[in-house]
Amino acid sequence: MKVFQAVKRVLIGRKLESSALGETLLPKRIALPVFASDALSSVAYAPDEILITLSLAGASGFAFSWKIGIAVALVMLIVVMSYRQTVHAYPSGGGDYEVATANLSPRFGLVVASALLVDYVLTVAVSVSSGVQNAEAMIPGLAGHEGLTAAVVIAILTAMNLRGVRESGTFFAVPTYAFMISVMCMVVWGMTRIFVLGDNLRAPTANFTVVGDPKYTGLVGVAFVVLMARTFSSGCAALTGVEAISNGVPSFRQPKSKNAATTLAMLGGIAVSMLMGILVLANVTGVKMFDMTGESHLVDTHGHVVKDQVTVVGQLARTVFYDSFKPGFYIMIVCTMIILFLAANTAFNGFPVLGSILARDGFLPRRLHARGDRLAYSNGIVTLAIGAIILVLAFNASVTALIQLYVVGVFISFTVSQTGMMRHWTRLLRTDTSAGVKQRRRWKHSRIINGIGLVGTGVVLLIILASKFIHGAYLALIAMAVVYVLMTSIKKHYASVARELELNSPSDRALPSRVHAVIMISDLNKPTMRAIQFAKATVPTFLEAVIVDVDPDVTERLLERWDEEDIDIPLKIIASPYREVTNPLIDHIRRIRSENPRDMVEVFIPEYVVGHWWEHFLHNQTALVVRARLHFMPGVLISSVPYQLRSSAIREKRWKRNDPRLWRDPGATIAPRH
Amino acid sequence: MKVFQAVKRVLIGRKLESSALGETLLPKRIALPVFASDALSSVAYAPDEILITLSLAGASGFAFSWKIGIAVALVMLIVVMSYRQTVHAYPSGGGDYEVATANLSPRFGLVVASALLVDYVLTVAVSVSSGVQNAEAMIPGLAGHEGLTAAVVIAILTAMNLRGVRESGTFFAVPTYAFMISVMCMVVWGMTRIFVLGDNLRAPTANFTVVGDPKYTGLVGVAFVVLMARTFSSGCAALTGVEAISNGVPSFRQPKSKNAATTLAMLGGIAVSMLMGILVLANVTGVKMFDMTGESHLVDTHGHVVKDQVTVVGQLARTVFYDSFKPGFYIMIVCTMIILFLAANTAFNGFPVLGSILARDGFLPRRLHARGDRLAYSNGIVTLAIGAIILVLAFNASVTALIQLYVVGVFISFTVSQTGMMRHWTRLLRTDTSAGVKQRRRWKHSRIINGIGLVGTGVVLLIILASKFIHGAYLALIAMAVVYVLMTSIKKHYASVARELELNSPSDRALPSRVHAVIMISDLNKPTMRAIQFAKATVPTFLEAVIVDVDPDVTERLLERWDEEDIDIPLKIIASPYREVTNPLIDHIRRIRSENPRDMVEVFIPEYVVGHWWEHFLHNQTALVVRARLHFMPGVLISSVPYQLRSSAIREKRWKRNDPRLWRDPGATIAPRH
Repeated sequence: MKVFQAVKRVLIGRKLESSALGETLLPKRIALPVFASDALSSVAYAPDEILITLSLAGASGFAFSWKIGIAVALVMLIVVMSYRQTVHAYPSGGGDYEVATANLSPRFGLVVASALLVDYVLTVAVSVSSGVQNAEAMIPGLAGHEGLTAAVVIAILTAMNLRGVRESGTFFAVPTYAFMISVMCMVVWGMTRIFVLGDNLRAPTANFTVVGDPKYTGLVGVAFVVLMARTFSSGCAALTGVEAISNGVPSFRQPKSKNAATTLAMLGGIAVSMLMGILVLANVTGVKMFDMTGESHLVDTHGHVVKDQVTVVGQLARTVFYDSFKPGFYIMIVCTMIILFLAANTAFNGFPVLGSILARDGFLPRRLHARGDRLAYSNGIVTLAIGAIILVLAFNASVTALIQLYVVGVFISFTVSQTGMMRHWTRLLRTDTSAGVKQRRRWKHSRIINGIGLVGTGVVLLIILASKFIHGAYLALIAMAVVYVLMTSIKKHYASVARELELNSPSDRALPSRVHAVIMISDLNKPTMRAIQFAKATVPTFLEAVIVDVDPDVTERLLERWDEEDIDIPLKIIASPYREVTNPLIDHIRRIRSENPRDMVEVFIPEYVVGHWWEHFLHNQTALVVRARLHFMPGVLISSVPYQLRSSAIREKRWKRNDPRLWRDPGATIAPRH
Repeated sequence: MKVFQAVKRVLIGRKLESSALGETLLPKRIALPVFASDALSSVAYAPDEILITLSLAGASGFAFSWKIGIAVALVMLIVVMSYRQTVHAYPSGGGDYEVATANLSPRFGLVVASALLVDYVLTVAVSVSSGVQNAEAMIPGLAGHEGLTAAVVIAILTAMNLRGVRESGTFFAVPTYAFMISVMCMVVWGMTRIFVLGDNLRAPTANFTVVGDPKYTGLVGVAFVVLMARTFSSGCAALTGVEAISNGVPSFRQPKSKNAATTLAMLGGIAVSMLMGILVLANVTGVKMFDMTGESHLVDTHGHVVKDQVTVVGQLARTVFYDSFKPGFYIMIVCTMIILFLAANTAFNGFPVLGSILARDGFLPRRLHARGDRLAYSNGIVTLAIGAIILVLAFNASVTALIQLYVVGVFISFTVSQTGMMRHWTRLLRTDTSAGVKQRRRWKHSRIINGIGLVGTGVVLLIILASKFIHGAYLALIAMAVVYVLMTSIKKHYASVARELELNSPSDRALPSRVHAVIMISDLNKPTMRAIQFAKATVPTFLEAVIVDVDPDVTERLLERWDEEDIDIPLKIIASPYREVTNPLIDHIRRIRSENPRDMVEVFIPEYVVGHWWEHFLHNQTALVVRARLHFMPGVLISSVPYQLRSSAIREKRWKRNDPRLWRDPGATIAPRH
């Protein structure tokens, strides 16, 4: 335990006071990297997935990449505009879940929540997997160990997040900005070299031949539409993470909603610029990708089939920087790698907040609502980490495989949420007639924006479902259904327990008429004597000591001691034909109960308190077994009389050392509020 | 748990009442197979080990086998005679441990106990390993899985022994007698065929050439003495198990001592006859063995080195029966196999009794003294099984390897015990002067016998130590030392705890002057109300309810409810800047304690009692944590107020089903003795 505590303190840091929550609020310049790194980082893999899908049509497919990019950018515009309405209308951080619950029904809220929970897990899995893929370009030794490496990275991220939000923010800002600047520089410098300096920049794969699927190579008819839909769906991965800001509004500085909306707009603009920049540069330099799951392949200039491939960003960085400014190449790769790991952090911010809200509403175990040592929702963080680790291990951290499960959840919640926002404005317009004309015009304007959002995201959702279902989206849908059923079951359980526990009859307040005190005895020593003295101090109506006659010699000796010590309470001996303590004792208590149904029975159990784990093997645990059994008997009060052996001081000291106030400020005291 | 209980009942059988103990006493005809199967079964491997050791001297070594046999028989005679004195003088079943403790010192008793405990474990390991070796002759598929097979056999034996002594006795009698009769028949029929019918019986290995170690082949000088000493030491394995009867005296029918002494004499006679019969027959038919660990090897008639070998009993059975009465061969092998597994049973009878005696005296955890479901010392049985399973897995069930660790412990306890018996008679002769002349003559006679025993076993112990130490006996000695140190440490711990707990000052009986009752509240519902009503019923001097202010909204709501319900006890709100419950609450209690050091604090903790394991995830375990911490604070009485949720009925039902009385006789009731 000592080691564990020390390790925990190094990894997690000191505990924080409740009032320190205010200090962890984020300015825009920090909130952007914290909440937007997911959306921004997806430009590191969205272009790859677009080109990989287009490769099924052979070399001519790649020409469509920037058109797909424009389509994705359009959807991004719609989504960002829609969510700017949401952060103004619902600044509490409930996001889509709150919107759907308030405006549609709790059931829809739960659908959104299930979708988001699953997608948060996928965000972590996809981002970290892509980060490992990029890292491989620099550390070839990782090849073959992607799953394990990704799991280790997730574990490290988990520890960082358990440290709390603010430190994460500062910590993550630098690499996020570095990534943005690097991509911008790369695109600008690449374009400059091509179009201004006239360099003939060719990607390493520019001269390779792509062999696609004959079904798509014609680029006509249904096959063409199907391929474009698939490509577009994969490209929409760039849109995930937008909702993270709407869930993170409470972490923004005042004015929270305005700051969040501004950050959202910045995020949209930056993400789209970067995506388009990369796609156009890839197009110009002739980057070629192929589907490593086998639907297409590359043939190099010697006629050999290519086995491995470098990511689009990696190829571009090599093309643009390697001969002109070598450090630029390394900076670009390192930044990409780090931003992807940090993107997972968005989920580490969003998932626990959502989990906590769901726990508060009774859809998840209540302990997820408890704040942990570092003001972070530790239980949620750990749950998310476990889910993501399972995913990267199961899919061996393959981005192309994981991306098929991704996005569908996000667009389900986008669509449901936009429907909810439409209702929200409609209701406001109908019910709140006191609002001025200007205000009402603003509401109508918002409703139009969310209407466009609903149509846009709804169409995209249908495209995604149609094009991705058999490729893996069904797995995500199954996971969402499981989460949904689990949450409704938990809610039902809590409701039934609450009903059961509700004060509803005068008998709940009936006072037991008399108290029968029973002291469990096995020997006559200090613990027993303490139990006797404590029992006497409570002045029960009846008081007796009982010993279960397991060994006649022991019983005989005790009876003698009892007389010697002149103890003035009766000692009852309970026969035990099976030489066990629990059942005869339980029977005795049950008899007292049934003979005096209106009385209370208080059982005093002397217990040894030891300090070392091994001491438990040496001392009888009968007391624990008896206590466990007595718990199931109504009308029985179980009073433990602990006797602290000297060795117990060790444990007490250990607890004192871990007292949070001692960590921070040894002189601090707590004053009761009342 | 349901399945576990059902499986347990099938394997272990119904529970037995204490008074049924009398019924499990054994008549001689049953006691012999139960307690003597170890000594009898060793004739299945002792000849093998004698011949294997002699093979180091080449073919000429085998001629010495029957001379070694006579030496072993002589030692057997001495040991049996000595132990007949012991069972008369100490009929309580403490055996060597009791003799050494009473006559020498508790330290010597503990030395004996350590030696015996280790040797019991080795008995199980060696017997079962040899049994598996014999089984292999019939089931070649076991080859290569000896360790695992042996472990499974031990597990089965464990289950049988957990069923209780009597059933084991009846169950084990048939195969033991079958083995004795089979060996006798084999020897008699073999001798008859050779010397009466004039058949030329040759063992399968009779024509093979033995290649020994050049060091020994001369059979002269020091090498000869060393080899004979090693052979003799291995042969002494036939002597283990004799002391089992002296530990098992209480299981015999009246007159216990006389019956035990008679059984001991029978055992000695039968074992020696069988050993000599096998050795002579092996000599006559030319059985050859070699050391599979590499110190000697066999070359067959084609000049090939032999890889595997059949046990001596296996070879003899084939030679004598295979051509004349084939079923005889199979019966002999099966009986040998079974008797060896059953031999392990001797240890399963002896070890738990010894462990229980040691536990009673405070050298082992007290729970080893508790009788289990089936009147058997379940904990001891399980401990023995675990030790033996570890051994067979570590040594891959190789008898030749395990035999090196064996025997040394038995002869340590033989020697110490004989010394003790010498002292016993001397003391009797010195102190009890009232005894008649006849009686005193008997005592003197006994002293002479034990004197011979002391010299005999002491010499054998020296031979064993000298010849086996580097071959493995040192491991056994280390194990004994570890057991010895462990037992003295446990004794010291118990003694120090007992001193600590002793009633020795009037303050132990001081009555707390007042009772401060504190009710832990987190919500206002039936469990809380029950806690309030129970607390009121105990009529404490002061009564307050406390809530830790983790969430201000919840606290606010509770305050309102408190007023609504019109509860007439004060509700104190405790600030919690770190949003945790335990520490602020502990501090509050500590403050009450330090302000009123002569008073008692009674903390009432409402607890939910649930029936399903998964419900624990859904309900806060704060109560458990608080209770654990309060245990370390003196002067605090911890009163759990259990509230049984409806689901808890499941658990209650399950317990009722397992109540031992219901198993046996549903109508039985228990009447207190006093």
